[in-house]
Amino acid sequence: MPGNSFGHMFRITTAGESHGPGNVVIIDGVPAGLELGVEDLQPDLDRRRPGQSKIVTQRKEADEAEIMSGVFEGRTTGTSLAIVIRNTDQRSRDYGDIKDKYRPGHADYTFDAKYGFRDYRGGGRSSARETNVRVAAGAVAKKMLLTMFGTRIVGYVDQVGDIKANIEKPEAVTLEEVEATPVRCPDRAAAARMIELIERVRSERDSIGGSAVVVASGVPAGLGEPVFDKLKADLGRAMFSLPAVVGVEYGVGFGVVTARGSENNDAFVAERGRGAEGPSGRGGERDAGTEGQRDQGAEAAERQVGVDSSLPSTPWPLGPSAPLLHTATNRHGGMLGGISTGMPIVLRCAVKPTSSIPQEKPTVTSTGEATTISTKGRHDPCLLPRFVPMAEAMVAIVLADHALRQRGQRGWGG
Amino acid sequence: MPGNSFGHMFRITTAGESHGPGNVVIIDGVPAGLELGVEDLQPDLDRRRPGQSKIVTQRKEADEAEIMSGVFEGRTTGTSLAIVIRNTDQRSRDYGDIKDKYRPGHADYTFDAKYGFRDYRGGGRSSARETNVRVAAGAVAKKMLLTMFGTRIVGYVDQVGDIKANIEKPEAVTLEEVEATPVRCPDRAAAARMIELIERVRSERDSIGGSAVVVASGVPAGLGEPVFDKLKADLGRAMFSLPAVVGVEYGVGFGVVTARGSENNDAFVAERGRGAEGPSGRGGERDAGTEGQRDQGAEAAERQVGVDSSLPSTPWPLGPSAPLLHTATNRHGGMLGGISTGMPIVLRCAVKPTSSIPQEKPTVTSTGEATTISTKGRHDPCLLPRFVPMAEAMVAIVLADHALRQRGQRGWGG
Amino acid sequence: MPGNSFGHMFRITTAGESHGPGNVVIIDGVPAGLELGVEDLQPDLDRRRPGQSKIVTQRKEADEAEIMSGVFEGRTTGTSLAIVIRNTDQRSRDYGDIKDKYRPGHADYTFDAKYGFRDYRGGGRSSARETNVRVAAGAVAKKMLLTMFGTRIVGYVDQVGDIKANIEKPEAVTLEEVEATPVRCPDRAAAARMIELIERVRSERDSIGGSAVVVASGVPAGLGEPVFDKLKADLGRAMFSLPAVVGVEYGVGFGVVTARGSENNDAFVAERGRGAEGPSGRGGERDAGTEGQRDQGAEAAERQVGVDSSLPSTPWPLGPSAPLLHTATNRHGGMLGGISTGMPIVLRCAVKPTSSIPQEKPTVTSTGEATTISTKGRHDPCLLPRFVPMAEAMVAIVLADHALRQRGQRGWGG
Amino acid sequence: MPGNSFGHMFRITTAGESHGPGNVVIIDGVPAGLELGVEDLQPDLDRRRPGQSKIVTQRKEADEAEIMSGVFEGRTTGTSLAIVIRNTDQRSRDYGDIKDKYRPGHADYTFDAKYGFRDYRGGGRSSARETNVRVAAGAVAKKMLLTMFGTRIVGYVDQVGDIKANIEKPEAVTLEEVEATPVRCPDRAAAARMIELIERVRSERDSIGGSAVVVASGVPAGLGEPVFDKLKADLGRAMFSLPAVVGVEYGVGFGVVTARGSENNDAFVAERGRGAEGPSGRGGERDAGTEGQRDQGAEAAERQVGVDSSLPSTPWPLGPSAPLLHTATNRHGGMLGGISTGMPIVLRCAVKPTSSIPQEKPTVTSTGEATTISTKGRHDPCLLPRFVPMAEAMVAIVLADHALRQRGQRGWGG
Repeated sequence: MPGNSFGHMFRITTAGESHGPGNVVIIDGVPAGLELGVEDLQPDLDRRRPGQSKIVTQRKEADEAEIMSGVFEGRTTGTSLAIVIRNTDQRSRDYGDIKDKYRPGHADYTFDAKYGFRDYRGGGRSSARETNVRVAAGAVAKKMLLTMFGTRIVGYVDQVGDIKANIEKPEAVTLEEVEATPVRCPDRAAAARMIELIERVRSERDSIGGSAVVVASGVPAGLGEPVFDKLKADLGRAMFSLPAVVGVEYGVGFGVVTARGSENNDAFVAERGRGAEGPSGRGGERDAGTEGQRDQGAEAAERQVGVDSSLPSTPWPLGPSAPLLHTATNRHGGMLGGISTGMPIVLRCAVKPTSSIPQEKPTVTSTGEATTISTKGRHDPCLLPRFVPMAEAMVAIVLADHALRQRGQRGWGG
Repeated sequence: MPGNSFGHMFRITTAGESHGPGNVVIIDGVPAGLELGVEDLQPDLDRRRPGQSKIVTQRKEADEAEIMSGVFEGRTTGTSLAIVIRNTDQRSRDYGDIKDKYRPGHADYTFDAKYGFRDYRGGGRSSARETNVRVAAGAVAKKMLLTMFGTRIVGYVDQVGDIKANIEKPEAVTLEEVEATPVRCPDRAAAARMIELIERVRSERDSIGGSAVVVASGVPAGLGEPVFDKLKADLGRAMFSLPAVVGVEYGVGFGVVTARGSENNDAFVAERGRGAEGPSGRGGERDAGTEGQRDQGAEAAERQVGVDSSLPSTPWPLGPSAPLLHTATNRHGGMLGGISTGMPIVLRCAVKPTSSIPQEKPTVTSTGEATTISTKGRHDPCLLPRFVPMAEAMVAIVLADHALRQRGQRGWGG
Repeated sequence: MPGNSFGHMFRITTAGESHGPGNVVIIDGVPAGLELGVEDLQPDLDRRRPGQSKIVTQRKEADEAEIMSGVFEGRTTGTSLAIVIRNTDQRSRDYGDIKDKYRPGHADYTFDAKYGFRDYRGGGRSSARETNVRVAAGAVAKKMLLTMFGTRIVGYVDQVGDIKANIEKPEAVTLEEVEATPVRCPDRAAAARMIELIERVRSERDSIGGSAVVVASGVPAGLGEPVFDKLKADLGRAMFSLPAVVGVEYGVGFGVVTARGSENNDAFVAERGRGAEGPSGRGGERDAGTEGQRDQGAEAAERQVGVDSSLPSTPWPLGPSAPLLHTATNRHGGMLGGISTGMPIVLRCAVKPTSSIPQEKPTVTSTGEATTISTKGRHDPCLLPRFVPMAEAMVAIVLADHALRQRGQRGWGG
Repeated sequence: MPGNSFGHMFRITTAGESHGPGNVVIIDGVPAGLELGVEDLQPDLDRRRPGQSKIVTQRKEADEAEIMSGVFEGRTTGTSLAIVIRNTDQRSRDYGDIKDKYRPGHADYTFDAKYGFRDYRGGGRSSARETNVRVAAGAVAKKMLLTMFGTRIVGYVDQVGDIKANIEKPEAVTLEEVEATPVRCPDRAAAARMIELIERVRSERDSIGGSAVVVASGVPAGLGEPVFDKLKADLGRAMFSLPAVVGVEYGVGFGVVTARGSENNDAFVAERGRGAEGPSGRGGERDAGTEGQRDQGAEAAERQVGVDSSLPSTPWPLGPSAPLLHTATNRHGGMLGGISTGMPIVLRCAVKPTSSIPQEKPTVTSTGEATTISTKGRHDPCLLPRFVPMAEAMVAIVLADHALRQRGQRGWGG
């Protein structure tokens, strides 16, 4: 299990390095009959690719995907789907001087410690370049989830440095709002200040951290397993598998540390329609408890979400007479006991500032001598704008996997 | 993959409910020849068990383990090891009234949504009771890691409500300091206030959240895989697989959001001894950069750790001439590129307040009627004291798994 | 992956040795709501247990199962199900002399080569005693398959030494016919001679090999994956995972070596009812091609099967207008391209003679000295009678796993 | 788990169809530092490719591999290795008429039953074309095993129709002997008759079955797990995962059915050198018990093998004082208790005659009408010559996986 696969029923396996011929993903488990073409992959690839705006790395990569298998006459066949994205702008000369020096904050040293050998060109396998095929696979997962459940997954930049977005309802943010600015922050005023900060940081030959939120709406209740494969556990693994993520939280997250149970528990509210009626039985109005129960801590409050207006039903039968519920507030972030409640799943990731900065800093050579290094090349002064589609992709892949697992365990309703 | 297994080369599979006959774990992959007996399991089980002190639940469970297989003449055989812990104090009558009501914050509703059916006694499989066998398995993993590498894993309570421990060097905290108070906080003054707070919260029929830190010292560099099975990813999944965990962070964690790369990158420093000499070649003194590089944010600074005084070597060969390194500071929390650096691994978990509180609160019945519920039974007013051994166990299991995986990939040095 | 788990969506994990406290299985993935109790497990356990008749080992073991979890109020909960079977008749004294000698044909030497250490009591983990929990798990799988699809799995002894059963239609053999004699051969005349042979072999302090056939009828078309997880591959792994199995074949099996394509291809025949009508749409009569197409080789002919009279429908939708088919003959053994056709699955296993025989034979001590050994203890002179329920169990577990996997990929029809 | 991956520590994942853009394999787990280039892959690819001789299919495919990742400066990096082989000669027109008809013996119907949809061009994913990337991966595994242990894996055609090769010592057959004739039978006289038979069969518009033997010599003792992942189980799964394989046996295989334990147990013989001395301590001569103990059945006797002249040591420590052993005969086929003994592993596969034959035969259309079909296109009249490298590849992949797993569990000796 050398760790280049992710998922079980919907499983991706990847290969590729920053400066090799290209990156490859094999997606195993896409159900047969899904309409799919490269045109479904390209929009998210474009959101992730370098050179998309002035505030990201200027490496030139078209990131065009080729589907090698698993699609016939425009539909998936149910067999494994391979996607190849070739590298085009490799400029290995940019990286020659890191062959013998360990870049601070990077995996150069740990790769040597692990393998005794490393591809030093652009970080090799440790480069965030490997995420392009994750994004392609995530686009497939998104399409599957949208088709099956109407699930929508939208991420956005929540904070860059000290600049925090003011988002009342994370679950109400739309893709269009996110894409309206190159920093992918739906709060326009904050976005402008974030861009300004990123440009200033770059001009200072530095980089800056930030955080992103991902919301999945329309997730049916019942996804996730009760012990090790809790949905929050698999989502957590997915987020931490992305480069530079050093913190993940759900719902009010670290805000629970100072909370009491009496305030932290979200109250259940019955839907007027009943779950037992199955996928089409969602006729009822809902008491949207929009004001919710406010968190005491200011920080936690900002992460609190209201009630989504389009809760999914469960496609599998609930308990014999069980009601379809929502919660008046969503401090829990869409999962209880590791299983989706049907409320929007809300998570937030802390992303560290880019380790590569063009400042001369002390380090050690690969033969143990003290030296200095200034990382040249074309790097993102802030990782967040390009992080958003990566995070969405991984959320989609986790949900797709659990959707198929749950269908295997329960079947569809009826 | 219904999710009751965790790990690959060192793999645990569990079963059991709160009020069934008992809990079972099968541990697969313990190397042959490790000295092991129930006496190795009991100390951690005692740290986790109910009734251990006044500030935890008073349910009476001895949590005595029986080893059913895999040990012969006091040593592991290399074949699978089964451990059974029987439930003794089941008092099902305490739980009868939750049969038909969904407890807020609990998995009652999500279990019905997932399975259409649930064992309502004490939460069934969603009860934290399942963690007793995780702790038993963790004790085996700890012993294996200690024997192989001298690794030590120590967790402690970092914060309860507003009361925060003041710990200068997380990696210097000892098990004895942790166990000195029932709240498992090594800062004695803070511990006293935490206990006071927990007792007050209980008297107010409420519960309170908190956070815990786990530190693994003596972890060899090179554990973890570069993409999906990053060590931070697998540790993250492990932590989020524990009940009530809603946030996880490494090193400075969410403190990176406001940090710049120029301050966030930990500088590499060469050891005087050289890694290439192999496991026994660690003769040199080390420049312990104890003062470190201070974090600017106050919160992040509290989580910063200095340099461990007993870094492990790597038992596998480093690159041909690669030096053994440490970093002057440990903002990165012991992992870069998802692979251990040899610095202490430091993580922090946010644990929500116990959902079960004896206050009358509104909820919904399993037939969709509005009602109220007051969760009776014997619950922890704060989960943190008993959370510490659970978190340590899961960290140990992840590290044991990656240690064997890395040995499979690289072999030992020589 | 130390190899004590089997399956994916329906997964069993086992532990236990011949002379330890007992054996344990955790079954992960049993769908919720299946009626289940120990009474479902005991019949097959009784078919496998020692001492059941004069022609098997006389070790005394009741093999009584305890369900530790996963069943509530008589139904499965969907969470993991643990079953414990304690050893009672251990007589370790029987095995003391094999501590220092390698028994020919046994795993004593290979365990030392693998682990450097072994539990020598009765073979430890290599004892066939581990199969008791497989049989218990198989009983759960059988019940699930019967409930879902009406699948029935029946095995029987096909040959012992030179005595071959004459079975016209393997798929028509009933459990009652099999259980009518202690040797589990439904051909009464052959059974009598087999028993006589086994008794003679035992009186001669020897053992004898044989073969068994397992037939699974009522398996829906569409189970199995096209490449590595072909149904024949997973069934093959399952059979070879049983002790003493050294050959496995499907349909005409090794009979294909001398066959031509023009005779070996089974012709498709359309059902009168149509598959597209779904599970209940099987109203039509069928042209039972009972005489079939005879195999030219005598040996292969004996393995040929006719047409089952109760083919299952597929619970998932066939192609848009696809017909429900059968084949006029079943030389292919129920699978094409690794996927079930809906025809009976027919496989045959070669089982070697018991390695333990009470004859003095040369061997080597664990310190390398030449010596002799005569294996005392209470051994089966022929493994076949007790092999039948083990093989049925493993077939059931493979089919249960693939049924849930296929349901995950396709859902039920409608 | 849709089944396009194989193995655990050395794991391959594949994608691709007969008439899609190409086939892809990702190999995960190749240890770092192995010298590797496409020149290591091409020889086995050439042994498998169509058009290599007159007796195989005349489809034109160069089967040239491109390594997309995982190799840097001529050595493996330890990260995942992707290999792409593009299809060039696709001639889809050959397959147009099978769009609406189910070919007897093929997976057309089962694909429709499974997926409700299929890529009908040349069998799509069910085509043996998918094995080209398995062969490429197998070449990597072979090189790893040769480098680590000196393991050599050689397969050959054992029988075609009634013509059986006379091979005294399977473990003595060399690659050169195998490659000396296009039919890959090292018995020259038999090979000539096999070729004649294959040509006659083709002229008669028919196909013919056969069997192949694979021998792995130089496999260290200790590979394989005691229960489900027995080496014979994983090898069995591997063989049955190949198209057209309907029978697998080890050592004397089905010959055990009529054997007695007193004759079937291979006697252990101590090596003069001692295993406890470790990898380099193999100085002693060996008593090659070449005549062995003859099997009574003629068929079984032909499969019996003598003693290999270059047994591997175990690279992990044996038991404290355990001797290095061989067996006087090798009826057991190199594995006991599912674990390698150090003797040559010998297995035999039954391969059915090609299902595609250019004779008009009755079948059913995909709308259920009776019709006839004559499979045009360019097919192998006998699959065996091209089967040999596929079978070798899968044996190599299984052994590579178990070698790394065993190293993870035990480490190297010393």
